[in-house]
Amino acid sequence: MNDHTSLRFTSEHARDDGIVEREFTLGDIPGILWTPGSAAAPVPLILLGHPGGPGLARIRPRLDARARASAELGFASVALEMPGSGERPALPDMESARDDLRRALDAGERPGEDVIDRLVLPLVERTVPEWQAAMDALLALPEIGGPVAYSGGVLAIGIRLAAVDPRVVAAGLFAGSYVPLRMFDEARRIRIPVHVLLQWDDEGNDRQRALEVFDAFGSAEKTLQANLGGHTGVPAYAGEDAGRFFARHLNLPR
Amino acid sequence: MNDHTSLRFTSEHARDDGIVEREFTLGDIPGILWTPGSAAAPVPLILLGHPGGPGLARIRPRLDARARASAELGFASVALEMPGSGERPALPDMESARDDLRRALDAGERPGEDVIDRLVLPLVERTVPEWQAAMDALLALPEIGGPVAYSGGVLAIGIRLAAVDPRVVAAGLFAGSYVPLRMFDEARRIRIPVHVLLQWDDEGNDRQRALEVFDAFGSAEKTLQANLGGHTGVPAYAGEDAGRFFARHLNLPR
Repeated sequence: MNDHTSLRFTSEHARDDGIVEREFTLGDIPGILWTPGSAAAPVPLILLGHPGGPGLARIRPRLDARARASAELGFASVALEMPGSGERPALPDMESARDDLRRALDAGERPGEDVIDRLVLPLVERTVPEWQAAMDALLALPEIGGPVAYSGGVLAIGIRLAAVDPRVVAAGLFAGSYVPLRMFDEARRIRIPVHVLLQWDDEGNDRQRALEVFDAFGSAEKTLQANLGGHTGVPAYAGEDAGRFFARHLNLPR
Repeated sequence: MNDHTSLRFTSEHARDDGIVEREFTLGDIPGILWTPGSAAAPVPLILLGHPGGPGLARIRPRLDARARASAELGFASVALEMPGSGERPALPDMESARDDLRRALDAGERPGEDVIDRLVLPLVERTVPEWQAAMDALLALPEIGGPVAYSGGVLAIGIRLAAVDPRVVAAGLFAGSYVPLRMFDEARRIRIPVHVLLQWDDEGNDRQRALEVFDAFGSAEKTLQANLGGHTGVPAYAGEDAGRFFARHLNLPR
């Protein structure tokens, strides 16, 4: 187990749009922290979930856009390099599961439960403690006050975080079907407000399974927003609706 | 066939909130028109769909709230008494179909296709020409300029209107499963933007059928927003999201 507790900022950039962008390492995990420049009081924090794979540098433009949207709401946001992604050590078992998944999808088949388990469970087990370490470190900064929301992809990571960490008070999730069956019980235990974006024609996703996951959430407030289009075709207004969801739940009276 | 072409205003009330509220008859159909008081130019129009049944007078508070939300966006809105509702002549065949539907639901059964056909098809056949006559009359008023959107319940009426009348440029629909199978082809022909609200735990609705209806819409922009709760439990933020949908599509450059 590496030490994920020491936060070290490696660069700082005050952007023209007022956002302060800092790269950091948390132990050996690279990450990026965006804070709205003009905040007078400690701000809430959004964890920017993403699928990993190509690494933070490659998906930076999309993360930047999400960070800007968060800053416009007055929130800080953070992204971490995922285990096995970018410059982080490869995880051969997960790679092999990912290959099996691709083979199934290329053949037009539904990936088996064992493939989903082998791909997703280790990712959840590894990533959730890293997000928790990031919360420990970042919430200790004077400019970040919480509460925290999880936003975005790898649905199973969002589910686990929402189920286990009370600092996460809302989750804006990207719908997916890659939720191991054994994690449905965790979804049922979730009580925080959940806003789920589902791309109706997402090629890689099983829509029925995605709806079952939504159905399982135990939250008293849960919204599914399904939009026409494939995985990367989320319309701008859907992003804005998700922003309003975070604004409702993170702007707590102080 | 009654004459549904003569519009006659029977009362006018300038409310404290600036909305001008006029009751009218269109031939023998009672209706209510709400217009934002301060509009400088002709305004778009929202058709307020509703399930009928108890009659306009009984559902007036809910209609008022929807009319106020429309006026805040700068739009006029209109409600018509439905065929067979309120003071309008009873329609025994439809009543008998409604009784059969209630019996099926009370028995925990899925209502048969014949019941849905007998209940919904005559309602669509009667109501759509009435809405079209209302558009003819109201769009001739100097203060109403279009475009027109359909909003609300009786999904099948919204589908037919969206499929046949080019004046209707957007539809914000309340999801339901009571769409006759023979109307799925009409849903496939719809090309206007569609925003569908689905109450995830709506007791009287078959969720799977509602999702199939959404899937059928031929629109390039379609959004399904599902929220936890029963038929009357639509959360306030869902109404606001629907409002933004109308604002996007009715505020056309002039």
